[in-house]
Amino acid sequence: MRFLFLGDMVGKTGRTAVWERLPGLISDFRLDFVVVNGENAAGGFGITEDIFLETVNAGADVVTTGNHVWDQKEAVGFAGRHDQFLRPANYPAGTPGRGANLFIARNGARVLVANIMGRVFMHPELDDPFTAGETILASCPLGEQADAVIFDFHAEATSEKQCFGHFVDGRASVVVGTHTHVPTADCQILNGGTAYMSDAGMCGDYDSSLGMDKEEPLNRFISKMPKGRFEAASGPATICGMAVEISDRTGLAEKVAPLRLGPRLAETVPDFWR
Amino acid sequence: MRFLFLGDMVGKTGRTAVWERLPGLISDFRLDFVVVNGENAAGGFGITEDIFLETVNAGADVVTTGNHVWDQKEAVGFAGRHDQFLRPANYPAGTPGRGANLFIARNGARVLVANIMGRVFMHPELDDPFTAGETILASCPLGEQADAVIFDFHAEATSEKQCFGHFVDGRASVVVGTHTHVPTADCQILNGGTAYMSDAGMCGDYDSSLGMDKEEPLNRFISKMPKGRFEAASGPATICGMAVEISDRTGLAEKVAPLRLGPRLAETVPDFWR
Amino acid sequence: MRFLFLGDMVGKTGRTAVWERLPGLISDFRLDFVVVNGENAAGGFGITEDIFLETVNAGADVVTTGNHVWDQKEAVGFAGRHDQFLRPANYPAGTPGRGANLFIARNGARVLVANIMGRVFMHPELDDPFTAGETILASCPLGEQADAVIFDFHAEATSEKQCFGHFVDGRASVVVGTHTHVPTADCQILNGGTAYMSDAGMCGDYDSSLGMDKEEPLNRFISKMPKGRFEAASGPATICGMAVEISDRTGLAEKVAPLRLGPRLAETVPDFWR
Amino acid sequence: MRFLFLGDMVGKTGRTAVWERLPGLISDFRLDFVVVNGENAAGGFGITEDIFLETVNAGADVVTTGNHVWDQKEAVGFAGRHDQFLRPANYPAGTPGRGANLFIARNGARVLVANIMGRVFMHPELDDPFTAGETILASCPLGEQADAVIFDFHAEATSEKQCFGHFVDGRASVVVGTHTHVPTADCQILNGGTAYMSDAGMCGDYDSSLGMDKEEPLNRFISKMPKGRFEAASGPATICGMAVEISDRTGLAEKVAPLRLGPRLAETVPDFWR
Ligand SMILES: [Fe+2]
Ligand SMILES: [Fe+2]
Ligand SMILES: [Fe+2]
Ligand SMILES: [Fe+2]
Ligand SMILES: [Fe+2]
Ligand SMILES: [Fe+2]
Ligand SMILES: [Fe+2]
Ligand SMILES: [Fe+2]
Repeated sequence: MRFLFLGDMVGKTGRTAVWERLPGLISDFRLDFVVVNGENAAGGFGITEDIFLETVNAGADVVTTGNHVWDQKEAVGFAGRHDQFLRPANYPAGTPGRGANLFIARNGARVLVANIMGRVFMHPELDDPFTAGETILASCPLGEQADAVIFDFHAEATSEKQCFGHFVDGRASVVVGTHTHVPTADCQILNGGTAYMSDAGMCGDYDSSLGMDKEEPLNRFISKMPKGRFEAASGPATICGMAVEISDRTGLAEKVAPLRLGPRLAETVPDFWR
Repeated sequence: MRFLFLGDMVGKTGRTAVWERLPGLISDFRLDFVVVNGENAAGGFGITEDIFLETVNAGADVVTTGNHVWDQKEAVGFAGRHDQFLRPANYPAGTPGRGANLFIARNGARVLVANIMGRVFMHPELDDPFTAGETILASCPLGEQADAVIFDFHAEATSEKQCFGHFVDGRASVVVGTHTHVPTADCQILNGGTAYMSDAGMCGDYDSSLGMDKEEPLNRFISKMPKGRFEAASGPATICGMAVEISDRTGLAEKVAPLRLGPRLAETVPDFWR
Repeated sequence: MRFLFLGDMVGKTGRTAVWERLPGLISDFRLDFVVVNGENAAGGFGITEDIFLETVNAGADVVTTGNHVWDQKEAVGFAGRHDQFLRPANYPAGTPGRGANLFIARNGARVLVANIMGRVFMHPELDDPFTAGETILASCPLGEQADAVIFDFHAEATSEKQCFGHFVDGRASVVVGTHTHVPTADCQILNGGTAYMSDAGMCGDYDSSLGMDKEEPLNRFISKMPKGRFEAASGPATICGMAVEISDRTGLAEKVAPLRLGPRLAETVPDFWR
Repeated sequence: MRFLFLGDMVGKTGRTAVWERLPGLISDFRLDFVVVNGENAAGGFGITEDIFLETVNAGADVVTTGNHVWDQKEAVGFAGRHDQFLRPANYPAGTPGRGANLFIARNGARVLVANIMGRVFMHPELDDPFTAGETILASCPLGEQADAVIFDFHAEATSEKQCFGHFVDGRASVVVGTHTHVPTADCQILNGGTAYMSDAGMCGDYDSSLGMDKEEPLNRFISKMPKGRFEAASGPATICGMAVEISDRTGLAEKVAPLRLGPRLAETVPDFWR
C-alpha cells in the first residue's frame, strides 16, 4: 500500500499548493491513501469547512489537525459532521469530533488514522498521549481490525515524538510528527517495523517564520512588544511530507522516504515511486 | 572556503564516531574549517577536558556547547584555558570561558565562531540571544575583521532559530541550529546569503531518545516516575552535520547541504564535495 | 469537627517544629483531624519512612505529598505499606501507593483525604486533576460515604488552584493549596460551602528561598551557573497552616482561618479555637 | 514616611473600589506616597489613558504595570507622556515609556519607584530582572539620590520574587510582588531592612479566577476548549495591598503590614496606622 502524508498546510499559499499538486501526485505515484494536516490552513490559524472540503476534494482521505484546531470558531460545529476530519484524540470526553477513525483505502485496506497531541512545552491540560495511543490501538489492532495504522503525533518536543514512536513500534504502520513546521531528516523504519519521522514539515512558504510572515515574529523577538498581527507568508510554497510503502501482509513499513517539492528546500521524491 | 559543522556528539558512540571519521573527512573533502558541538559528549551530559582535547586532535577547530556545558564540573575550570572551547555567549559577564572567538582557518581566512543559546522553552535566565548576536557582529563584522562568521544557535524552538537566521541574514556566513538532536531537512541559503539549517542533528545512536538509551525516557512518559538514570545509547552512531561553501570574496554562502554518515538515517554527502 | 492542615514541612527545621508543636496544638485546640504535607521533609527533597512515621507519631492523621514525593528512592517502596501516606492521585494506574483514602477522625467522622497535583507550569505528564477530583468525589461523596472531604491541591498556578476550588465547591469540605511555600491571605468559604486557601505556606525557615538556604538559589539567578547544591535552610521554622471548622451535619465549612506560629511571619491563631 | 502599595486593580469593580477608597485612605492614614498596579484595570487586560489619569486623580503617585501593559494598544502611545506611568524596566532599549523614575513624596522625600518583571514561567524574552535591579540601584542609590526605593516585582514564581528581595535587601525600602492576584501572608522585614511581601494581591472580586469571571477559566480547565472570552468578574471588590513605615533617616523599613478591605477576605488594617 502506498501511503503519503503531507504536513501542516500553512495559509493560502500552502493549501493552494496542496490542492494543485495532490491530484497529480495521487495519479503519478498511484497512491492508495493520503493524509494531510490542516491545522494552519486558514491564514495560519485553524481550518474552515470550505478549506476542509476542498482538501478532501483534492484527494485527501483524511485531514488531521493539532493545537490550532479550534482557532476558526466554525470548526466546533463541523468537526462532528465529517468522518474524514480528525482533531487530537486526547481531548476529553465530550469534545466535538473524533480523534481516530477507520477508513477504506483505494486498495481496499482498512486504515486506522489517529491524531494525537503531545504535551511537553505545549498543552499540559490534554489527556496522556501515550494512554490515548494505547486505547486506540487496543480498540482496533493492526493485523486484526486494521490493515494499516497511521499516527499523526502533533508535538513540540522531539523526545516525546521519538518515545511515542518507540512506544507503538511494531503496532503501527506509521508515526509521523507534525507541528514544528520544519521537515526532519530522520526518516527511518524502527526496529519493530514502524515508519517514523519526527516532523513532516509544513506545506508553506519556507522564507518565513514557521510559515508566517517573518516580520512580526522577528519584531517580537527584538522589541518584545507586539507591533502588528501574525499573517501567513505568501511566497511560493514548498510541499513537505513522508512517503511510506506499507506491507499488505503485515501492515508494517517496508520503505520510507521524505517528499519535498518546491522552490526553497532541496527537492526529493521517493526512489521507490519514481 | 569549505566549512563543516557536526552536531552534538552524544556519549561514547557519538564522540568515537567523530574521532574516527573526522580526519578522513577533512582530507577527503579538503576542509578548511570544522566546528563540532560537544555538549553531550560525556555520557550525554557535558564534556570533559580530555574529550575536548581529543576532539580538537581529531581535527575540530572549535568545540561549541549549549545548555549542558557545565554538567561536568571540570568544565568550569577548563573553559577559560582553551581558546577553541566555546560556551553560550549569552551567559552573564563573569561566566568562565568565552562565547565567541576569532580563528584562522587552514586557508588563512579569519573565522568568527559564536555559540548562542535560545531561551524559548529553555533558559529564560540567559541574556537576550538577539542582542548577543548583534553585539558579537558589531565587534567583528563580516567583511571587515572576519572573513566568515559562524553561529551555532543552540535552541529548542524552531521559531527562535528561524528568526535568528533572518536577523543576521547577510551578516553571517552560517547559522546552524543545535540541541534537538534531530537533523532538519531545511538547509537553505537565506535571501541575504546566510546558510541556514534549523538543526544539524546529533552525532549519535538514532535508535534512541535523543541519543539516550530509550528505555528510561519511555518509562517516564508511561509511568511518570523515575526508574533508573538516563544513559547514552550505545548502538552505532550516525554522524550528522552541515556542509557549506563560503565565498572567499563575500564571506556569504554559495552552497549548502547536509552530511549524514551512518547506519540509521539515509546517507548523504554534499554533491559539491564529491 | 476541628480540622487542621499544615503546609509542606521543609527540612529538619520544618519537620522538627511540627513534631514539637503538633501534640500541643492537638490537645489545646482539641483537634479532630490533622493533615500535614511532607514532600520536602527530608532535606527539602522527598520524605523517608522514618520521617513519615515520626510525623504520624506526632499526631498527623495523614501525610500528603506532591511533586517531590519520589525524591527519596525508598518512597517507592514504603508508599504502598502505609494507609496514611498519600501521593498525588493523578499519577497513572500502577503507581505505588494511593492518592486518596478514607479515615476515621477522633470524633468518629469518616474523612476522605485526597492529594492531587496541578499541571500548569509543573507536570504536564500527569492525569487531568479535575477528572481525578471528579472520580474521587464520585467514589465517595460528601454526605454519603464521607462526612468530610479534604483536598490537598499541590500546584504552582493560582488559577488552577482557584478553579479547582470552584469546581468542587459544595462537594468538598476543604480545598487547600500547597507547593508555593508561601501562605496566602485568601482564606475564605466559597459560595457552596467549601473552605478554600490558595496556599497553606510551608513549615520551615522563612529567611530563605522557598525554605532552602538562599545562597545557591540567589547565585543561580545571578550567575546562571550552579555553584553548590540546594540545601534546606536551618534557621528557626515558622509553622503555617489552615484551620477549619467543618459542620458535623453538612460536612461543609463553617469557619476558616490561617494558623501561623513562629519567628518570621505575623503570628495568628484562629479566633474560634482560642 | 507612610507608604501604601495597592495590588493589580482588576476590571471595573477593582478600579472603582480603588478610586472610591483611596482618597479616604490617604487622608485617614496621612499617607505620604501611594503606588497602585494598574495592568489589569481595563476589563482585566491593560490600562487606558483615562483609567490611568483617574487613578492618579484618586491619589496614586505612581501607576505600575506588568505583562499586560500593552494589552490596550493606546498604552504604546501614552506610556511616554506620563512620568507617573511605569512599565517593566527590563524591556529592551527603545521600548516606549520608562521602567523607573524618581518622585517627590508629600513629605518631601525623594522616592525611586521601579517596576521589574520576572521571567520564570512568564517572559523569557525580557532582560535579566536582577541586572535591571542592579542598574537602577546604581543610578540612584538609597541614601544618596533617593530617600526611599520601591520595587514592584511582577512575577509568577515565588522563588524569583524571594531571591530578588534578598538581592536588594538593605538597598531598597520595599520589594512587593504582584501578578498572582492573591495576597500572600508573608509580610516581613528582611535581615537588611527591606520590607518584603511575595504578592500584594489584587484589588478585585475574589469570587473569581484571578479576578476574572470564573465560568470561562473553569470551562477551559474542564473542556480544554474555549467557549467564550475572559471577562473581568463584577462582584464587589476587595482592596489588597501592603503598608510600610519607611525610616526618614535610613530609608529602610520600620514596620510592615498587609491592608485588606472588602467583603471576601478577612479585613485587616495596619495596627500602626490606626
Ligand atoms: Fe502547525
Ligand atoms: Fe501545531
Ligand atoms: Fe545536545
Ligand atoms: Fe542542548
Ligand atoms: Fe513543597
Ligand atoms: Fe511541591
Ligand atoms: Fe495582574
Ligand atoms: Fe501580570
